[in-house]
Amino acid sequence: MAGTRARRTDAELVAAVRAAVVEELAEVGLGKLTMEGIAHRAGTAKTSLYRRWDSPQAVLLDALRAEFPQERPRTTSDDLRQDLIDALALMVRWMATPTARAVASVLAERDRYPELADAIYAHVFDSKGGRFTSTVLRHYADAGALDPALLTPVVADIGEALVLKLAFDSDELPTEHTLAAIVDQAILPAVGFPPMQ
Amino acid sequence: MAGTRARRTDAELVAAVRAAVVEELAEVGLGKLTMEGIAHRAGTAKTSLYRRWDSPQAVLLDALRAEFPQERPRTTSDDLRQDLIDALALMVRWMATPTARAVASVLAERDRYPELADAIYAHVFDSKGGRFTSTVLRHYADAGALDPALLTPVVADIGEALVLKLAFDSDELPTEHTLAAIVDQAILPAVGFPPMQ
Repeated sequence: MAGTRARRTDAELVAAVRAAVVEELAEVGLGKLTMEGIAHRAGTAKTSLYRRWDSPQAVLLDALRAEFPQERPRTTSDDLRQDLIDALALMVRWMATPTARAVASVLAERDRYPELADAIYAHVFDSKGGRFTSTVLRHYADAGALDPALLTPVVADIGEALVLKLAFDSDELPTEHTLAAIVDQAILPAVGFPPMQ
Repeated sequence: MAGTRARRTDAELVAAVRAAVVEELAEVGLGKLTMEGIAHRAGTAKTSLYRRWDSPQAVLLDALRAEFPQERPRTTSDDLRQDLIDALALMVRWMATPTARAVASVLAERDRYPELADAIYAHVFDSKGGRFTSTVLRHYADAGALDPALLTPVVADIGEALVLKLAFDSDELPTEHTLAAIVDQAILPAVGFPPMQ
């Protein structure tokens, strides 16, 4: 099997392995994730996995991190509201991916795999800005558009918390309209822009 | 077994059955919840269960509803901030109960038991005010202390969303200090009281 795909570049192999580990997790679960299973699914040899990663969990973390989006404020305009909506839209698009389901399944088993769960916070979430909307809010605070003292951990979590809560309660991903409501009614007031009605 | 407890009053029997169904769910799971198992655990006969409830899920819903707290604004003082903190503290105390774990386990299996999950929203949450902080916010809006137009579904969900998110991320129940931060930094600004710093 590995032989038939010998012409893949390194980047292609890495991409195949990352997709494979997420699929493998969904199929067999964290307890049965093995280098063997990942290699087989990616059409490569176990030895080539060990050249890059030292455990199935290391492969998984690498895949989750690679697929986690990096939020960026736009540099060509000055629109805090739209940048916040875009940041939440980035989160919602990610929530629809197999990687997001992989993250959820690992975190759901946190009691059994506490180190892996902690590693997801440290190496996946925190390395990409901590929380959706945080990078945007810090950018505008740095530019003097809002008081940096208002950017507390609670405030940085308002957007993610409401997206997750509304998604969970409705069993559907929030629409752009809902994201705008979260920004207008909850995030902007918390950073000093009183709600309008 | 039922004979040995024949002197229980109706209220005692109902309480024993409600405790039993929550324990039984934790032990066997939703798929194996039976009138037989609940009755046995409660030390009563299946027939006496059927006098009151027509299915194991009906027993469960009744127990979840009975144990879900009812938020009330204090009537002796006028302190929106403290009433909001108390409302979230009520939620956090509930989160530490076996009933809350039962609710979480049912909602986690929503794909398999959609009607039961919907019934939890309708008969447990909505019948007790919808969301923690909602009853308090509506009370102050009715009293003219805040603009009722600001009490949108998103705003009603800020407190619960942040409590759940912070509890999930930290794997610990939020402290009173954290609840105060949620109220001061997120809920009050959203209902028209700008954040202070």
